[in-house]
Amino acid sequence: MTLRQKTADLLATAWVRNFIVAVIIFNAIILGMETSQSIMDAAGPLIIALDRICLAIFVAELGAKLFAQRLQFFRSGWNIFDFIIVGVSLVPGNGGLSVLRALRILRVLRVISVVPSLRRVVEGFVTALPGMGSVFLLMGIVFYIAAVMATKLFGDAFPEWFGTLGRSGYSLFQIMTLESWSMGIVRPVMEIYPYAWAFFVPFIMVTTFAVVNLLVGLIVNSMQDAHAEEGNAATDAYRDEVLAKLEAIEKRLDDKR
Amino acid sequence: MTLRQKTADLLATAWVRNFIVAVIIFNAIILGMETSQSIMDAAGPLIIALDRICLAIFVAELGAKLFAQRLQFFRSGWNIFDFIIVGVSLVPGNGGLSVLRALRILRVLRVISVVPSLRRVVEGFVTALPGMGSVFLLMGIVFYIAAVMATKLFGDAFPEWFGTLGRSGYSLFQIMTLESWSMGIVRPVMEIYPYAWAFFVPFIMVTTFAVVNLLVGLIVNSMQDAHAEEGNAATDAYRDEVLAKLEAIEKRLDDKR
Amino acid sequence: MTLRQKTADLLATAWVRNFIVAVIIFNAIILGMETSQSIMDAAGPLIIALDRICLAIFVAELGAKLFAQRLQFFRSGWNIFDFIIVGVSLVPGNGGLSVLRALRILRVLRVISVVPSLRRVVEGFVTALPGMGSVFLLMGIVFYIAAVMATKLFGDAFPEWFGTLGRSGYSLFQIMTLESWSMGIVRPVMEIYPYAWAFFVPFIMVTTFAVVNLLVGLIVNSMQDAHAEEGNAATDAYRDEVLAKLEAIEKRLDDKR
Amino acid sequence: MTLRQKTADLLATAWVRNFIVAVIIFNAIILGMETSQSIMDAAGPLIIALDRICLAIFVAELGAKLFAQRLQFFRSGWNIFDFIIVGVSLVPGNGGLSVLRALRILRVLRVISVVPSLRRVVEGFVTALPGMGSVFLLMGIVFYIAAVMATKLFGDAFPEWFGTLGRSGYSLFQIMTLESWSMGIVRPVMEIYPYAWAFFVPFIMVTTFAVVNLLVGLIVNSMQDAHAEEGNAATDAYRDEVLAKLEAIEKRLDDKR
Repeated sequence: MTLRQKTADLLATAWVRNFIVAVIIFNAIILGMETSQSIMDAAGPLIIALDRICLAIFVAELGAKLFAQRLQFFRSGWNIFDFIIVGVSLVPGNGGLSVLRALRILRVLRVISVVPSLRRVVEGFVTALPGMGSVFLLMGIVFYIAAVMATKLFGDAFPEWFGTLGRSGYSLFQIMTLESWSMGIVRPVMEIYPYAWAFFVPFIMVTTFAVVNLLVGLIVNSMQDAHAEEGNAATDAYRDEVLAKLEAIEKRLDDKR
Repeated sequence: MTLRQKTADLLATAWVRNFIVAVIIFNAIILGMETSQSIMDAAGPLIIALDRICLAIFVAELGAKLFAQRLQFFRSGWNIFDFIIVGVSLVPGNGGLSVLRALRILRVLRVISVVPSLRRVVEGFVTALPGMGSVFLLMGIVFYIAAVMATKLFGDAFPEWFGTLGRSGYSLFQIMTLESWSMGIVRPVMEIYPYAWAFFVPFIMVTTFAVVNLLVGLIVNSMQDAHAEEGNAATDAYRDEVLAKLEAIEKRLDDKR
Repeated sequence: MTLRQKTADLLATAWVRNFIVAVIIFNAIILGMETSQSIMDAAGPLIIALDRICLAIFVAELGAKLFAQRLQFFRSGWNIFDFIIVGVSLVPGNGGLSVLRALRILRVLRVISVVPSLRRVVEGFVTALPGMGSVFLLMGIVFYIAAVMATKLFGDAFPEWFGTLGRSGYSLFQIMTLESWSMGIVRPVMEIYPYAWAFFVPFIMVTTFAVVNLLVGLIVNSMQDAHAEEGNAATDAYRDEVLAKLEAIEKRLDDKR
Repeated sequence: MTLRQKTADLLATAWVRNFIVAVIIFNAIILGMETSQSIMDAAGPLIIALDRICLAIFVAELGAKLFAQRLQFFRSGWNIFDFIIVGVSLVPGNGGLSVLRALRILRVLRVISVVPSLRRVVEGFVTALPGMGSVFLLMGIVFYIAAVMATKLFGDAFPEWFGTLGRSGYSLFQIMTLESWSMGIVRPVMEIYPYAWAFFVPFIMVTTFAVVNLLVGLIVNSMQDAHAEEGNAATDAYRDEVLAKLEAIEKRLDDKR
């Protein structure tokens, strides 16, 4: 057995997996503590050191995996996911951009790729996405058209909400979630453009109806999958048996002739 | 082969369809750029010219289709849809009403009639509508009654929200979407009419319950359609086979008598 | 044929039904016009007279039905519904209470009892209610408990929102609909009682989860009903045929012995 | 029959159950009255005395049950539920903490453990929970990560909303419920961090999608349970009969050979 094989076997043991889960949870707590000023004042260097140790363990684990699987490593979406998440933490943002420092907490997402039940839930989400592709595309088109129209119609009077395509898109997203759509946005707009409701009310109806259809589609798909798996094995076995029996009877009747 | 037939064949080729899709996407980008003041300052005439070219291509395509199909053109709802959308852009609103200029972006909706998967989604939406007709009619009646009542009860004290039938209808739509219904509308109203909740809370319950029923009806319908299509072909074939076999056995038994 | 029988036959004709629907729609428009001050200034007496004529027609129709069906009239829930709605309009609130005047628009609801498709939708709503009885009762209990607790805990500091059981109930209903629950209510409360979230967040979760369960229950029930009706007639017929054929074969084999 | 057996029989009678339900309802009314200052001024001592009597009855009932069932009492989750609820009321909070006084109303929850139909609804809720465990865990992880990121990114500028992990968690819960997420939180944040939408919009999409998936999972599970119970007994009986008949025919044909 080569070293590569031994490394692969070691990484696949329950002991290593549980250890990695423990490190992830420990790291999550450490990163949570970093948000508290009083804890950082008391034990800042210790916490940063512990965080570095956790990161080192992740790098070592990924390195070992990469050594064991070589280029096959990148065939699994979950490995790429782990690679990017750990990679982001290695970017020297420690003294620099606070956004990169904040992204380090994404490491905790690794728990999803390690714990099988969470992995299955996320895979369920992801496999549900393609079936909704057309509806998403349609909503994208509706959003783009509505954003262009809103910018042209209301952009001059309300630059804060509809000044650019981006702002209009954000405001329309807010309106689609029904947050303060009327009191916050449409009533003020209607004071200048009294017919603005003729744009926003249909927009709300269309996007809400599309979201409802997405939901219905999801439910029907899941149901069909569940239904197809359910009792069909039993049904198929029964049907095969009935047909076999009927054929046997026919055959015997033919034999007797 | 006549010219008409040749035109029809040409329009049906994948090449022409893809070209039209490309023009629509290009036009969508152009119309999006038109919303940016800085881009228009730099290259306004070019963008307007490109938009005109796109429009000319659409007009040419529709003209060719009209020539190929003659009056049959208007038998398809999608053709009428395209015809109206392109027609709106031809109305000379360039220098005039900004609303007409804003409507030009609706041309992008043509992508729905051209791309089959989007077309199917929209057709799915539209075929779901008639089954909800009665519930929609009922909600219309409830809205009308509630608007008349709200106008009579609260119109004098709150002309901004309930002054006319139209304003009451808009405010009730806002209340149905639950947006600021209490803090924004009902609590201020209750300061003058302390029993206003006795009107608004049942209104919210009835309309929300109706919306939920719409949703449930949609799900059940889609499910039944899906279920009916699903395994029934296999089931019917199996049943026919069993009955045929049983009849054959009976016939043989009769023959032997 | 007695006069009673003749009256019953006349009321059941399509002509009378359509006439009543037309009167209801005409009355709805008249009552809508009453909300406009300018229309009332121009033609107030005419509109009031037309409204009285519509009411007279309804009273005459109900009187004829009552004469034809006598006490059996009150066996149908829809008749009682019509009776109460028309009765409310007869209460002399013309010069008196504006609430009673506003209730006259409820007459338009008669269209539901007259048009069969609307009647079926409402009957569908009503038959769905008993299955949700236990969940409604449970939500009532949760609401009562939460209202008592909120009144005791926050009533002194926020009499406007939680001063009495009624006010707490209303505020909790608002919170359940998620309207301004945080910015409007819970954040201000938390400034005095920092642990108020420990009351409100679980309340939101429990009530939302109960509403979701109501929805799920409704969908599952409708689905089962739809499923039970669906293909079962065909299945039952097929099964009966198979069993009959099998019995016939057995009988013939027995005969031959 | 021992005294223990007699006590157990007595507690199981419908008479005792109905009496307990009556006491619970009476106690609920009493506790509701306690929230009214005017009623307490008029008849405070009487109401407090009646409340004590109700509590005494509950203690007596639980004591009898404990005597009858001994340690088996604690095997039922509902008994433990009753025990804790009544126990909380016995803590001497009368003169002390108002929170403990407010918790006394929880006694009304006992009605759930006593009335079978309510009990079944709650058991339905509870049995639905484990199936959603993974999704809940995932949402917990997403919330924790988002809270850490929000605290690090926006905590300095908005200590009120994102100052600590707890505040961030509460604000993110508010954002997930879509309450004032844009006008109340994200727009003010965007004035300082213009790219804040890149954090909040994906957060809303992911959590909303997860909630929708929870809902879909619940519906599909309930449906499968309902479907599995439904007509399968009839189907199984039919299948057994067909197979038995076919075997009988085969046997007879074999016999005749």
